[in-house]
Amino acid sequence: MIPSTTLNLSGNRFTVWYRLSGTKDEAQTKADNICLEQTVEFPYALIPDGPIRDHIIGKIESFDSIDDHQHLVKISYAIETTAFELTQTLNVIYGNISLIPGIRVEGLELPGEYLRNFQGPRFGRDGLRQLLNIPKRPLLCTALKPMGLSAKQLGEIAYQLALGGLDIIKDDHGLSNQPFAPFQERVRYCVEGVERANRQTGKQSIYMPNITAPAERVFENALFAKENGAGGLLISPGLTGFDIIRQIAIDPNIKLPIFSHPTFLGSMINSPDNGIAHNVIFGQLTRLAGADATIFPNYGGRFSFSLEECQKIVTGTTIPMGQIKTIFPVPGGGMSLARINDMLQVYGNDVVLLIGGDLHRHGPDLTENCRIFKTTVESLI
Amino acid sequence: MIPSTTLNLSGNRFTVWYRLSGTKDEAQTKADNICLEQTVEFPYALIPDGPIRDHIIGKIESFDSIDDHQHLVKISYAIETTAFELTQTLNVIYGNISLIPGIRVEGLELPGEYLRNFQGPRFGRDGLRQLLNIPKRPLLCTALKPMGLSAKQLGEIAYQLALGGLDIIKDDHGLSNQPFAPFQERVRYCVEGVERANRQTGKQSIYMPNITAPAERVFENALFAKENGAGGLLISPGLTGFDIIRQIAIDPNIKLPIFSHPTFLGSMINSPDNGIAHNVIFGQLTRLAGADATIFPNYGGRFSFSLEECQKIVTGTTIPMGQIKTIFPVPGGGMSLARINDMLQVYGNDVVLLIGGDLHRHGPDLTENCRIFKTTVESLI
Repeated sequence: MIPSTTLNLSGNRFTVWYRLSGTKDEAQTKADNICLEQTVEFPYALIPDGPIRDHIIGKIESFDSIDDHQHLVKISYAIETTAFELTQTLNVIYGNISLIPGIRVEGLELPGEYLRNFQGPRFGRDGLRQLLNIPKRPLLCTALKPMGLSAKQLGEIAYQLALGGLDIIKDDHGLSNQPFAPFQERVRYCVEGVERANRQTGKQSIYMPNITAPAERVFENALFAKENGAGGLLISPGLTGFDIIRQIAIDPNIKLPIFSHPTFLGSMINSPDNGIAHNVIFGQLTRLAGADATIFPNYGGRFSFSLEECQKIVTGTTIPMGQIKTIFPVPGGGMSLARINDMLQVYGNDVVLLIGGDLHRHGPDLTENCRIFKTTVESLI
Repeated sequence: MIPSTTLNLSGNRFTVWYRLSGTKDEAQTKADNICLEQTVEFPYALIPDGPIRDHIIGKIESFDSIDDHQHLVKISYAIETTAFELTQTLNVIYGNISLIPGIRVEGLELPGEYLRNFQGPRFGRDGLRQLLNIPKRPLLCTALKPMGLSAKQLGEIAYQLALGGLDIIKDDHGLSNQPFAPFQERVRYCVEGVERANRQTGKQSIYMPNITAPAERVFENALFAKENGAGGLLISPGLTGFDIIRQIAIDPNIKLPIFSHPTFLGSMINSPDNGIAHNVIFGQLTRLAGADATIFPNYGGRFSFSLEECQKIVTGTTIPMGQIKTIFPVPGGGMSLARINDMLQVYGNDVVLLIGGDLHRHGPDLTENCRIFKTTVESLI
């Protein structure tokens, strides 16, 4: 038996909805185990009566069977179990139980007392619109590709893309610090290319480098990008951990919008009965971390997301979360000019439209293709 | 069409084995797509003849059907695509394609020319044995629990555990910086408890705090732990990103053994046709990052790993990887004293035996239970 203890807790709890696979009995046992596994990881019988039993161990708030093999359980946890850290929050939500098949996080509700410890996105939807001076229309984005070109060549492509009037020219997420296009050299050439185009167009396109890097260099990359004229930052939290987004978003020396890329996070969603649902991982958690926009594969592209899953992500970008700002959905992944109308029907104007390779495919003049992208959008809204 | 380019590549490539689900035709298309998606993310037809086509795009080295619905494809990538970064290496191995169901990474082969950019574990199996002065027998480990106790109470339990002769007393992975047991206070109390026990026993148990934390604090936690007498570090790379292990492992001011915890990584393995196989994620990649030991759920415990999956992890800890040292497997998760014999049969002596809650359950005297753990192991080897 462990010693008894006293705890000074606020009484505030946050809530996670889990969908559990199995018979009702199996799911009830699973729910009990989640309450222990995600908190004390200790045999219930050995914990004395008192505040650990009463408040630290997760509490089943409701249990409903969807059908014979699926059940929805709502479990609450004391907010203090998270230490008000994003890392430990992820750990309580889906840490050890990620190792048990048949548990999927479907929903998340965080109270204001928890959320006030987080700043969330610095810009969010409204801030990004203000920054880019685009009050209403969808934002237009593309990716610099392909890996293998030199920094100078990528800078020239960035120039052509910005000349065509696109708002955001981001690095492809696979460009990191390869010897043929090193990060710092790439930032210099691409910023130069975009600024040259801006002088010609009078517009304010921004270049957004991929700062995803080894642990000791992500923050350094962000500072270098800021100091050298980049207008935003791309990060892949699956590779770096989600919390680095928060660190960069709150830093007073950086103050750049952050786009989150979904690479390496697919195993969270590609099995229907495991992982963390689209709205939570690509919506709420990305937003809590502090990204201003969340990139995800649009339905009907090279990837497998359904329309409904994409709509759930949009819900996650706007669902009330205390003072945490709403963020932009950025559907991409095999998008084409031919699909703009369809995308606008689904997403409305509060979207960043991301078209990559297809901008090169549309015709021989890349700048002209960008203009077509822009005029197509303007004609449809 | 993008411009042609020249590339100064070494010609060295690394290899990934993917198991693909679907018909043979579907799998062949999938394999072609992987080669593009993980590198150029660009339409093949728009890439001119030259080094990007010839060397940057992934190459299918072999394709074999396991049965009508499963196929094993071996794809090689130029080592330069990784920028010799762990983050970008993960991105090439399983980045965007993680978002496509039915692709599982089954094997990984990294050539010496790539590996020489990584130090890997500072200690590894031999180094950890030397450090702890345990030449042959299994290492004995337990976890400080439960969440909710104060730092002082955890320090007292650490004392009792070390007095019983256990080698490694690690924090439970859910202890981070909660208000009831803040990190720095916990490190001080637990180091004091373990050192007090060591003075009585004449042995050298170590305390291993969990340094998993927000991005700007992980490294700081490691330094604090080192400066305050901790003997090792616990990190959860699913929460922090794998690369932080590397940063800490190579740091000349820290020089402590690192144990990796599998929390939040479960979705990599809990769907049989998706993710990254046990031997790669918990073996090779954890080792490449620089952990000296890899914790994973033992077969037959609270989790669902099979004996075969656990054996594959062990293979991943020893498979030749250039100069990268071998590391310890640490099976845990619901282990009990009654299972020691079985575990020794499976893992032999080169294992860290991790028993948590059951040490509290075995009898009323925690120190005595630790002695039983140790004498049981000694009687069986």
